Amino acid sequence: MGLIQPRTLKGFRDLMPAQALRRAELVRTVEDTFRAHGYGPIDSPIIEYAEIIKGKSGGETDKELFEFTDKGGREVALRNDLTVPLARYVAQHEGQLVLPFRRYHIGLVYRGERPQRGRAREFLQCDADLIGAEGPAADAEALVTMAAVYAALDVGTVTLRVNDRRVLNGLLEEVGARDVAVPVLRALDKREKLGEEIVRSDMRAAGLADDAIERVLAACTPRANDEETLAALEAAVGANAQARAGIEGLRAMKALCAASGCRPGALRIDPSIARGLDYYTGVVVEAQLDALPDIGSVGAGGRYDDLAGLYTKSRLPGVGFTIGITRLMDAIEALEGEASMACPSVVAITHPGDDRLEAVFAFAAALRREGVACDVFPEARKHGYQMRHADRRGVPYVFTLNDDGTFHGKRMHDGETRTCTNAGEAAAWTQSR
Amino acid sequence: MGLIQPRTLKGFRDLMPAQALRRAELVRTVEDTFRAHGYGPIDSPIIEYAEIIKGKSGGETDKELFEFTDKGGREVALRNDLTVPLARYVAQHEGQLVLPFRRYHIGLVYRGERPQRGRAREFLQCDADLIGAEGPAADAEALVTMAAVYAALDVGTVTLRVNDRRVLNGLLEEVGARDVAVPVLRALDKREKLGEEIVRSDMRAAGLADDAIERVLAACTPRANDEETLAALEAAVGANAQARAGIEGLRAMKALCAASGCRPGALRIDPSIARGLDYYTGVVVEAQLDALPDIGSVGAGGRYDDLAGLYTKSRLPGVGFTIGITRLMDAIEALEGEASMACPSVVAITHPGDDRLEAVFAFAAALRREGVACDVFPEARKHGYQMRHADRRGVPYVFTLNDDGTFHGKRMHDGETRTCTNAGEAAAWTQSR
Repeated sequence: MGLIQPRTLKGFRDLMPAQALRRAELVRTVEDTFRAHGYGPIDSPIIEYAEIIKGKSGGETDKELFEFTDKGGREVALRNDLTVPLARYVAQHEGQLVLPFRRYHIGLVYRGERPQRGRAREFLQCDADLIGAEGPAADAEALVTMAAVYAALDVGTVTLRVNDRRVLNGLLEEVGARDVAVPVLRALDKREKLGEEIVRSDMRAAGLADDAIERVLAACTPRANDEETLAALEAAVGANAQARAGIEGLRAMKALCAASGCRPGALRIDPSIARGLDYYTGVVVEAQLDALPDIGSVGAGGRYDDLAGLYTKSRLPGVGFTIGITRLMDAIEALEGEASMACPSVVAITHPGDDRLEAVFAFAAALRREGVACDVFPEARKHGYQMRHADRRGVPYVFTLNDDGTFHGKRMHDGETRTCTNAGEAAAWTQSR
Repeated sequence: MGLIQPRTLKGFRDLMPAQALRRAELVRTVEDTFRAHGYGPIDSPIIEYAEIIKGKSGGETDKELFEFTDKGGREVALRNDLTVPLARYVAQHEGQLVLPFRRYHIGLVYRGERPQRGRAREFLQCDADLIGAEGPAADAEALVTMAAVYAALDVGTVTLRVNDRRVLNGLLEEVGARDVAVPVLRALDKREKLGEEIVRSDMRAAGLADDAIERVLAACTPRANDEETLAALEAAVGANAQARAGIEGLRAMKALCAASGCRPGALRIDPSIARGLDYYTGVVVEAQLDALPDIGSVGAGGRYDDLAGLYTKSRLPGVGFTIGITRLMDAIEALEGEASMACPSVVAITHPGDDRLEAVFAFAAALRREGVACDVFPEARKHGYQMRHADRRGVPYVFTLNDDGTFHGKRMHDGETRTCTNAGEAAAWTQSR
């Protein structure tokens, strides 16, 4: 039999060791931050009944969905987001869950998009939600957690651009555009990407008069600072009750983020943020990297009124957000270059010959007890070969057993050397960076 | 439209928050230990070409495999282990990988088994391998890492039962059973489960004479200690070269594990361990929980000669092992009872009314800076309701803002209370457990 060609499917990819290590660190930082804010993990299957994944769209075929008939004759599909599985999960386990309920979920989702611009058909989604609560404390917690996630990552400053759907809906009521809110908000959402002229023409096509369009665009333009933006919004919405409630919500967000010690400027009121999804009903947010605004949003979310209406009669409002792991990986690569650490070891220990292995195994174990990740080269190869192996993996320190039982250490990036008599000394040196 | 019944597919299940939190902790401990030993993560798609997943079995239908035709007409399958994807990965990226190459991979795999005994069709597999190296340092590293994983978990002591296929193969050569090694080893592997009589009759069916059977069974019985076991094996295999090499390997393992500070008894030479898989060629290992031997092995592995022969002409020997996450979860539940922490917060802070939210958000942020995970109850409900909410989630401490700006803390398990003037004091109390 000939060889089978080793290859992955179109739109699917392997992560090489350095990328996988970087992504694992990123995911761990995100998880740690979620947990610090009381969000715990859940897990649910990647395969579900197609009926559940399709939800509202029911029997319609969805070209982007991975669906098939399993060997038991069931119509099944791979999940294409984590929101529908959350809705199904909460409805199914309502009696066991303690509401209000905070959860995070980091898992793979599948979308069979035409792989334009190299879009992945399998990607890691990362969501956090608080289900079963309304009001400023719930909304602010989401923003504070988001801000903390970005503050914990090495991606420079991130601005959370925040708005409230109630403000937009109230404004549209005031200009007589209540019935065409959906197409008008969709148009508004594309303002940054497509420019004002296209937005104007889309709004006109939706049936909005020119003066209404100008009122909307003027009100939905962020000013020099949040106070001015809010003042302009207040003037534009007049006495409209839901818009007023939205504006009060935005003020409360700002105060609670400030009280939480968020970086000044971490949150910016931006009335042009609408978010495309039609289920948002209150606060909406998009996260933007200040160093790389053009990369697109690196996270987004908002408040919704009714998470699981397809599966339960209970009304389950919530607020949640997604952290864009893939975009953040792209950003880190743009800011810091390709990952070079192809393995987690801080120290590589060279192989001293089979008869002296016990000494290096003891040294390796002692280093690990000091918190230093390390490995022993697994075969008795030439010393230069072993040094190159460490260097190619990006390991920062290499130690070699001397004849007198001490260890000769080399720091790879600048060639500094040191003789260590025990693992404690070696650990202190490697940790002094 | 009526409601869609929220349900999971047969053989698939959700993890409830407390289970998911416990599993996440378990996985993190395993990952940390892998990394301390120089193993880094990789990632590869869950969906692959069916041809690749099927490997040797080629076009044969495999009832346990989840396979389907995707919308581009490709025959695809969900992976059913992480070894075949590793083989494909290493063959595909041979030029980019730095060999010898250590990797771990924790990922979902799919097996459509008849869900007898509640076996899952989707489960988390957790493998670590070192590819491209042979010899005692490579083999011992695998055992040292395995032992370190179990030592880091709260599951009591674990014994690694270690053998070497070369010893078994040499022994079978000596008794003239070389040509029937596969069925004889399969029979031997079932000794513990099925008892000696069935093993004898299976060996007889494989063509082994009665005296040969008795020689094999006698040699493959562990003695009072490893030295006696090794001496009995030496006597049984005579001058057989490969068996002698295997015995030397086992001695080296023991010495290197001892040098690494493994618990005495962590490793036990057990010549009855054969492992069913026919690709093992050297050291083989099974991990057994001393407190729960009947739960079955909680990890296993061994050395193989040729990982990726289906995909590349390069010979890639390796040594690796799997950690049985599901079995370990069962063991932890048996030893410690069901998980009760349904969320990661150590502190819940009650909602003081919307007008005093800033004070509690500031307190929460300060607690997090002290390393204490916490959350603020998201709505202004009755105090008793909020206390019950914390209690039902298993949160160990609850703090409530007093009128004078201090915080009243309550430790839930014993009712002890304390007044704290700042987050530092509160953190110290909660961390003093």
